[in-house]
Amino acid sequence: MTDTPLPGWSLERVVDTAVANVAAGGGPFAALIVRGSEVVADGVNRVTRDLDPTAHAEVVAIRSACQALDSFSLAGCALVSSCEPCPLCLAAALWARVDEVVYVADRDDAARAGFDDRAFYELFGRPRSEWATPVRETRTARAAAPFDAWLAKPDRVAY
Amino acid sequence: MTDTPLPGWSLERVVDTAVANVAAGGGPFAALIVRGSEVVADGVNRVTRDLDPTAHAEVVAIRSACQALDSFSLAGCALVSSCEPCPLCLAAALWARVDEVVYVADRDDAARAGFDDRAFYELFGRPRSEWATPVRETRTARAAAPFDAWLAKPDRVAY
Repeated sequence: MTDTPLPGWSLERVVDTAVANVAAGGGPFAALIVRGSEVVADGVNRVTRDLDPTAHAEVVAIRSACQALDSFSLAGCALVSSCEPCPLCLAAALWARVDEVVYVADRDDAARAGFDDRAFYELFGRPRSEWATPVRETRTARAAAPFDAWLAKPDRVAY
Repeated sequence: MTDTPLPGWSLERVVDTAVANVAAGGGPFAALIVRGSEVVADGVNRVTRDLDPTAHAEVVAIRSACQALDSFSLAGCALVSSCEPCPLCLAAALWARVDEVVYVADRDDAARAGFDDRAFYELFGRPRSEWATPVRETRTARAAAPFDAWLAKPDRVAY
């Protein structure tokens, strides 16, 4: 892809979809998975409607695109979002192996509207000992057993 | 919760479930959402089986727990994982507002088995200009319109 907006559709479409999603009772976020000029899938924020804290627009679009392409990889595709993907969505994009991520508004816009995207980025940049939410390792003797089983399985499907 | 393993069930259950998931064709990961001694929901890695790169064990467990509790918040619950949650799963846990995250193996175990959890944590700690996957802002004049619509909606449901 080039430095110009993606071909075949406009960034305004994503912004307009995010605006419309607010009226529909969702969060102010929308996303597309595109492949060149083709829109593979779209998604809007459905957290409160679906009672799914992971139903961010980007995650919804990624899931939908994978179904459309019959693949757990979106290599060759780009993620286009109305707002900078939060750590959840950015990591989802990495796991989905998209070629590129493009966004319109950013974490500061989201923070102004009361969303924690920026706060969570800041948390990720600080030692976990400073987090309000404890995150702790409780290692056991068999901790590595799942990975040993994985490595011993000749027909494992890596991702 | 205390420094001892969670009551009413054992960390070994999560490890055993992760081992079993390998034999079932999934990735070597399992997770639980617990509330005190109660297991609210469990999840295993289903990325390749469901063609869903976001179907990590923790995400699957979070989604299932939210359905079980009829809520998009898991406040009062803990996430217990067979392996350190990757950035996707840790951010999902934060958005789900769990009280605590406990894990058995860690990102180094996962890396030994070929998984990118550690690599993605390292990416999150580096400037995006150094990433192999481009992540870029393409701000437009109407970038903030979704958030303006959100703030103007008196009956918005925040999360």
